Amino acid sequence: MTDQLIPATEHDDRPRQADSALRRRAAAVIPGGMYGHQAAGPLPAEYPQFLRAGLGARVWDVDGNEYVDLMCSYGPVVLGHRHPAVEEAARAQAALGDCQNGPGEVMVELAELLVGTVQHADWAMFAKNGTDATTMCCTIARAHTGRRRILVARGAYHGAAPWCTPRRSGVTPEDRANVGHFTYNDLESVRAAVAEAGDDLAGIMVSPFRHDAGFDQELAEPSFARGVRELCTQAGAALILDDVRCGFRLHLGSSWEPIGVQPDLSAWSKAIANGHPLAAVLGSAAFRKAAASIFVTGSFWFSAVAMAAAVATIGALHEENAIEAMAAQGSALRDGIIAQAASRGLDIRYTGPAAMPYLSFAGDRDHELGSVFAAAAARAGAYLHPRHNWFISAAMTGTDLEMALTATDSGFAAVQSRLAHHAK
Amino acid sequence: MTDQLIPATEHDDRPRQADSALRRRAAAVIPGGMYGHQAAGPLPAEYPQFLRAGLGARVWDVDGNEYVDLMCSYGPVVLGHRHPAVEEAARAQAALGDCQNGPGEVMVELAELLVGTVQHADWAMFAKNGTDATTMCCTIARAHTGRRRILVARGAYHGAAPWCTPRRSGVTPEDRANVGHFTYNDLESVRAAVAEAGDDLAGIMVSPFRHDAGFDQELAEPSFARGVRELCTQAGAALILDDVRCGFRLHLGSSWEPIGVQPDLSAWSKAIANGHPLAAVLGSAAFRKAAASIFVTGSFWFSAVAMAAAVATIGALHEENAIEAMAAQGSALRDGIIAQAASRGLDIRYTGPAAMPYLSFAGDRDHELGSVFAAAAARAGAYLHPRHNWFISAAMTGTDLEMALTATDSGFAAVQSRLAHHAK
Repeated sequence: MTDQLIPATEHDDRPRQADSALRRRAAAVIPGGMYGHQAAGPLPAEYPQFLRAGLGARVWDVDGNEYVDLMCSYGPVVLGHRHPAVEEAARAQAALGDCQNGPGEVMVELAELLVGTVQHADWAMFAKNGTDATTMCCTIARAHTGRRRILVARGAYHGAAPWCTPRRSGVTPEDRANVGHFTYNDLESVRAAVAEAGDDLAGIMVSPFRHDAGFDQELAEPSFARGVRELCTQAGAALILDDVRCGFRLHLGSSWEPIGVQPDLSAWSKAIANGHPLAAVLGSAAFRKAAASIFVTGSFWFSAVAMAAAVATIGALHEENAIEAMAAQGSALRDGIIAQAASRGLDIRYTGPAAMPYLSFAGDRDHELGSVFAAAAARAGAYLHPRHNWFISAAMTGTDLEMALTATDSGFAAVQSRLAHHAK
Repeated sequence: MTDQLIPATEHDDRPRQADSALRRRAAAVIPGGMYGHQAAGPLPAEYPQFLRAGLGARVWDVDGNEYVDLMCSYGPVVLGHRHPAVEEAARAQAALGDCQNGPGEVMVELAELLVGTVQHADWAMFAKNGTDATTMCCTIARAHTGRRRILVARGAYHGAAPWCTPRRSGVTPEDRANVGHFTYNDLESVRAAVAEAGDDLAGIMVSPFRHDAGFDQELAEPSFARGVRELCTQAGAALILDDVRCGFRLHLGSSWEPIGVQPDLSAWSKAIANGHPLAAVLGSAAFRKAAASIFVTGSFWFSAVAMAAAVATIGALHEENAIEAMAAQGSALRDGIIAQAASRGLDIRYTGPAAMPYLSFAGDRDHELGSVFAAAAARAGAYLHPRHNWFISAAMTGTDLEMALTATDSGFAAVQSRLAHHAK
């Protein structure tokens, strides 16, 4: 972060002392001060590293600054923070037991619910991380086919294990030896990668839409989705839908159901328990035997509280028409933002589904304008992100939307000033 | 499971209907009916698959059968189920927020507490699975050294990712290409593996003692531990202590502190939050830069509730002298069991630390007698395991101990009958 990229925080009169003090303490006991996707280092300095609380569509940082939440914890919070029915289900289960010598009854209830909710699913397995789920899908595909190669879109994020993490430090060539690449929405490139894999193709993993961090989003072309499905079927390989980020935000089923494409395996996490730690692999009957043949486990994979939260989450998603609510509020936000940008003559791109949008500025090298926008929005009370898609929760009210749009207008004003300054 | 191995469940007059019904439902929606280390299929039929509740050192299955708990959820429950201080801390944090846009203040507090508690630790990183922690240790060791090879003891369990899972289904040769092997407590075999690794040695991963499932346990020879430390130092490689299973059960620090050997990196999970889902990597200053260079993350890795539970767990471990309590109750159990076996003329082996014991019978091919013992113990109200080490929690009272010993005596009686039947 340089002063040229980010407006000086002197313009920021919000209290910041608690966050600054915690950052100093963290620098001593956490490598790099923080790690992973929640490291605030790469964000504008206006963003807090440490959060104190959340309720509905609002969050508070450790200094008490309030934000309307357009990130939803990077996806998990789909019904809003501390959703009453979800938290009540979690508390009720915790009053009995969580991590026990075996799963609770709720594991069967949740597996049945998912099988009844997701069209392609005949069975379910549970884990803790999205990466657990995507990795399990690869292992099941390999066990099923007796082959090794998994194809993924170049630049797609499928987790942070050595085989898929976007940074190569500590990763060996062997970790990636069985991963091939294609270009999202480019069926010819998939055909070429399939041909290259020859008789060693175990599966193709694909996201419901292209949501690579730092790039404009692309919805899947239905012909691409159908083509990938057909290539997998022809090759006897697994079509693996990585629904970790999108699952239960766009559709109450797997995210390619609206375009009529069924995967063999799907990976889930994030939103399925409204923030409680849970991941799942769902699969079709043909892959059941392979799924039973692998050994995967974890100390907390059978814990009942997150599963009880998932059952309550899926129930509330239905009862509250949450998918429609997210789409509606997301559309209102999109319309407002596009109008704001237009009124200031700013050339923006607003891509992806309304409930998971990404904003960028035309010709914005190094996300400079995106950072100016995000910084000003934070000062004005919106928590969003300059280089990652946003998430709209079903808890967002009209007041939250107004607060968000007030903040984004501040963001656009700051961008306008920056451009005017550049023009001098 | 055949009738020859397991006493017929007709002798079992406890209610079993709820568990049986859930097993039938699970068979339809979960591959193999259950997976991983908590699959009850390989256990005697007397063991429930599904658990309902726990409190202190007692657990209840879904049919209401009560057990004194000698498995502690395979390790996580160190202070007893639903420990008041831990659950209160978790509830208080949950009332603010759990999975947010960034970690809570409690992450810094926990990192500081661990750095202050574990001698070799200068920093901490958090994750969700023990496998996350062991895998991160490998990645950090590789990033630090620029080398690939990790050595592990043959037969040791270090997690269930493709590089380390004990079952090969779905695993490729490339997943294991950079893993070498030695024999636990055999320093010469380590030297040979180090020599074979040549200039590609990144690290040696080792458990605090040998606790391979299905085998008698072996404490680490201090000369072995010191020798492995020395070999790592000479090679500039990382000594990685896999403290996932033992951490905070044997010592309030890393488990080799009592023998004076400090690892460079250590992997933790299971007991650190008394059942709440959390894992940690702790490291020394020399490895901080490498730790900051890798990209690892997870949707729930920064969640505050499990961290608050961990802070409360470490506090309670101190306040309750939990390590001493586990050792004392474990010793009393060991003395009682050894006396029971001797009085019946049974030739047993009772190995490992008192707080994490393993019982086997001399010449017991295929764990037949171990299963007879475990089945009878379950009928008599103890939850233990025929092929995995047990765990004693600090919540175990004198009454719990009596209940456990009554059950183990039933177990020995059943073994005696089986041997008498064999002798006919």
